[in-house]
Amino acid sequence: MQPEKGQKRKSLKQRLVLKSSLAKETFSEFLGTFIMIVLGCGCVAQATLSRGHFGGIVTINVGFAMAVVMAIYVTGGVSGGHINPAVSFAMCLFGRMQWSKLPFYVGAQFLGAFVGSATLFGIYYDGLMSFAGGKLLIMGENATAHIFATYPAPYLSLENAFADQVVATMFLLMIVFAIFDSRNLGVPKGLEPIVVGLLIVVISSSLGLNSGCAMNPARDLSPRLFTALAGWGFEVFTAGNNFWWIPVVGPLLGAAIGGLIYVLVIEIHHTDPDTNFNGEQSEDKLEKYELNVAM
Amino acid sequence: MQPEKGQKRKSLKQRLVLKSSLAKETFSEFLGTFIMIVLGCGCVAQATLSRGHFGGIVTINVGFAMAVVMAIYVTGGVSGGHINPAVSFAMCLFGRMQWSKLPFYVGAQFLGAFVGSATLFGIYYDGLMSFAGGKLLIMGENATAHIFATYPAPYLSLENAFADQVVATMFLLMIVFAIFDSRNLGVPKGLEPIVVGLLIVVISSSLGLNSGCAMNPARDLSPRLFTALAGWGFEVFTAGNNFWWIPVVGPLLGAAIGGLIYVLVIEIHHTDPDTNFNGEQSEDKLEKYELNVAM
Amino acid sequence: MQPEKGQKRKSLKQRLVLKSSLAKETFSEFLGTFIMIVLGCGCVAQATLSRGHFGGIVTINVGFAMAVVMAIYVTGGVSGGHINPAVSFAMCLFGRMQWSKLPFYVGAQFLGAFVGSATLFGIYYDGLMSFAGGKLLIMGENATAHIFATYPAPYLSLENAFADQVVATMFLLMIVFAIFDSRNLGVPKGLEPIVVGLLIVVISSSLGLNSGCAMNPARDLSPRLFTALAGWGFEVFTAGNNFWWIPVVGPLLGAAIGGLIYVLVIEIHHTDPDTNFNGEQSEDKLEKYELNVAM
Amino acid sequence: MQPEKGQKRKSLKQRLVLKSSLAKETFSEFLGTFIMIVLGCGCVAQATLSRGHFGGIVTINVGFAMAVVMAIYVTGGVSGGHINPAVSFAMCLFGRMQWSKLPFYVGAQFLGAFVGSATLFGIYYDGLMSFAGGKLLIMGENATAHIFATYPAPYLSLENAFADQVVATMFLLMIVFAIFDSRNLGVPKGLEPIVVGLLIVVISSSLGLNSGCAMNPARDLSPRLFTALAGWGFEVFTAGNNFWWIPVVGPLLGAAIGGLIYVLVIEIHHTDPDTNFNGEQSEDKLEKYELNVAM
Repeated sequence: MQPEKGQKRKSLKQRLVLKSSLAKETFSEFLGTFIMIVLGCGCVAQATLSRGHFGGIVTINVGFAMAVVMAIYVTGGVSGGHINPAVSFAMCLFGRMQWSKLPFYVGAQFLGAFVGSATLFGIYYDGLMSFAGGKLLIMGENATAHIFATYPAPYLSLENAFADQVVATMFLLMIVFAIFDSRNLGVPKGLEPIVVGLLIVVISSSLGLNSGCAMNPARDLSPRLFTALAGWGFEVFTAGNNFWWIPVVGPLLGAAIGGLIYVLVIEIHHTDPDTNFNGEQSEDKLEKYELNVAM
Repeated sequence: MQPEKGQKRKSLKQRLVLKSSLAKETFSEFLGTFIMIVLGCGCVAQATLSRGHFGGIVTINVGFAMAVVMAIYVTGGVSGGHINPAVSFAMCLFGRMQWSKLPFYVGAQFLGAFVGSATLFGIYYDGLMSFAGGKLLIMGENATAHIFATYPAPYLSLENAFADQVVATMFLLMIVFAIFDSRNLGVPKGLEPIVVGLLIVVISSSLGLNSGCAMNPARDLSPRLFTALAGWGFEVFTAGNNFWWIPVVGPLLGAAIGGLIYVLVIEIHHTDPDTNFNGEQSEDKLEKYELNVAM
Repeated sequence: MQPEKGQKRKSLKQRLVLKSSLAKETFSEFLGTFIMIVLGCGCVAQATLSRGHFGGIVTINVGFAMAVVMAIYVTGGVSGGHINPAVSFAMCLFGRMQWSKLPFYVGAQFLGAFVGSATLFGIYYDGLMSFAGGKLLIMGENATAHIFATYPAPYLSLENAFADQVVATMFLLMIVFAIFDSRNLGVPKGLEPIVVGLLIVVISSSLGLNSGCAMNPARDLSPRLFTALAGWGFEVFTAGNNFWWIPVVGPLLGAAIGGLIYVLVIEIHHTDPDTNFNGEQSEDKLEKYELNVAM
Repeated sequence: MQPEKGQKRKSLKQRLVLKSSLAKETFSEFLGTFIMIVLGCGCVAQATLSRGHFGGIVTINVGFAMAVVMAIYVTGGVSGGHINPAVSFAMCLFGRMQWSKLPFYVGAQFLGAFVGSATLFGIYYDGLMSFAGGKLLIMGENATAHIFATYPAPYLSLENAFADQVVATMFLLMIVFAIFDSRNLGVPKGLEPIVVGLLIVVISSSLGLNSGCAMNPARDLSPRLFTALAGWGFEVFTAGNNFWWIPVVGPLLGAAIGGLIYVLVIEIHHTDPDTNFNGEQSEDKLEKYELNVAM
């Protein structure tokens, strides 16, 4: 209320405020991925460490999805809430983000996921230590490594595993593109994160059995690296016939295919309001693009 | 930004863009039904193949419903998101779609459901092969045919089965008509798919026990045909006292009755804004109709 | 499109259209309560008849709540979607509906619940007959009477049962009043039914153990009467120390108390826009009132 | 309609209407916390007293979250719906509420939680009495004290318990700040309570195992005091190595950290519309602030 006080607070703020939009976005993606890992992998931790008494497939699928929802609400207005290198890659591929930003986004995502893993490890330190008599195991009924990274089902071949990650991420991106396409049915502005959350509920309920449905290189590789360093050992990389690279490479390919299908089957056939100089519609579209591109 | 580049992309696009609205809609219904089958039946697959460890009635009912939600978000702005021959039939019957479009919609729906079944079979190929020692069974505790098509409960007579499909689809259409009736309470624009999803949650939780609540000829017959060809054998058609035709014929009758009840009990009694030339209201209604009719 | 055809359809419609607003509302309340019973009690039927394999507390609580949501979407724009004599009573008591309409609303609700019970009995006829060897039981592990009406837990005294119904309905009405109070936080128009549904989820998850949380005379008494006539016998009235009258009388008292608490603690303290002749706000309020009062 | 009648009702109302805004807000916070405890702890009661037959982790996590949603809808427009001393504290700390209001808010919250505990005890009196042969136990399989207050897992050290409450409340406030930040992605007005509810679902599913995720001094201390007085005895304070103070102090620290992280990483970097005298945006922000500050 007093101008002097406002002045003073402003000058303090001014020293902290980031001038660069890219710096803001990088911090934002770091925070978003951090939130997703602590709250999302936290649901797996609670179900695992309680041996199913305080969690199960419903709390994991709904909880992880809502962790993504919350991460998007925290970061969506600043960096678009990608929190996934495969999403950022698809955004660049389809002209919705500049390629020059990609390394910053992806780096922030990997780092956020690593710090999130460490934080979750800290919160559940006593629980992890008491769960298997102090041992941190990758396999068997006392395993805890799958709290952090995903592992394939025993029956799964590498070919099927790769197809699984490609197809799951293909559905993710195809439908995310629809959710943010204001010329389609149109999710009300501000509710897109909820619909993305419901999408993750259904994908993890339908395509989660083969290998846990990572669909996100940062969500899988950073926590895996953390577990390797924190005591589970580097067998986290060799487990499942060296499965580790599949949730890293598969999602990138799947994201490209998913985006392409949506664009080819739906998006390019919209009667294009841009060419008609239809002001209102174009503005709407731009507004949506900003969300994705995070300028 | 550069006009040359824009020109070039446009010319590439122009070659791919569908001139015919009906062609767009046909592709859209194909894609929507494909999505519904992969993600929806995928929930049944995950629960079945994990023998209940990674899925159950909650993930199936919520997951299948959200698969429908996502299919509608992808296709709603183009073809109205019917993804169900019974819905398309009711839309024609009540003057919300031209009859001439019906064969294209229904054909696309059946084809999309067939391709979706094949895709799901591929994603879970290793899982299906390991589940019953390589056998693809229709009956018993190792059965997997019900991942794709619906089968009646042991206690169910054919008469009760037929009534079940008629009544379930009657509720589906009666309430779908309410959801898209802008002169009733009015679901906010862009949230109709979510409410349709919640409707499917309740119907599958209440009327799903008798025979799995297909309510959709394409959702049931195409996957059944796929399983017949893919190794389960043509007993999928004779099982349950030749049950297969009931989720095909019952929904068409139920959809007609459901639409009729809504129109007779609720819709025709609205004070009609059309006759008052009340511009704003009429526009609103038209906007809603477009969603259904997908012109 | 052709005026002649339009004329003709109109004249057909004109013969069917109800002139009286009260007649419309009565039909609407009948249909809404019918929907709630078939889909809501249907969730209990599915869980009971499958002995928990295809339903449980989650599908019942969420499913019944969504049955209410759907009933409100179908009837809300016409009759306000009360589907509960206790709600209609409170609306009259707090000046939101004329007392002269009450008998019609309540009659339609009781009738709709009765017809809904009969319909559900028909859909699950084969299931009910095979469940306990053709017997329709009120008590024990093969009981099916609780599919339709509510029964008290073995530990419950009549005093506690009465308090339970009063308090549960008190919370229902108190919060329903908040949901429709446009001068409070304000649920977005058209989403009130969803929030009412979430309210029913929490009440049935927290206050459902004592006696099944009917909170609605029509939802409980009509199905109880139906079961008495359909083969369970008139012991449905004497069971639980003549429990039957508690979900009839308790909710009426609870609704009055709940509404009163909301009005006294929250509503009357709003700075009243009516006295300021603040046009816009008043209109908003009226719009909301119409929803409740269903003029 | 009649001015005389309106006059008369007004004069009755005028005697009851609270002149002081602070009095209104105090009553509102009392009512909100009361609702949260009866309906939220009620979910734990139903699951515990039915030994898991009518409730479990899903109904508890979803039910408690929806209890919070309902409390916010009832109180949000009057007092901002804090219902948590840690939230009120953070609001003061970050300049969104005057410090002078804090004691009234906190007092009302503690009192509301106490009265809510007593009400819940009354509703489930018969159930509690029959559960363990009339004994009210704190430990073991017949324990009922955790219906009201939270207790730590057996494996948990005090250090880890404190960190758990700090981190959980940090996530709560960080994301609540995002949900009400109209310059971020922006939850649609009137839907913020729903998103807060989803946030509580994910936090209780991911960070609830260590010690039940109270995150709220009033939600934990008042019910604990009630149980001490109502028959469980003062061991409720010494249990778990004198755990009782951790959900009181931890949340205050966590709320401060959570708010600070959001402000430092996201909020201060928004291009500030205030300095641009951008009227529309500022108004929007003020409207949102009112919700929080509850003037």
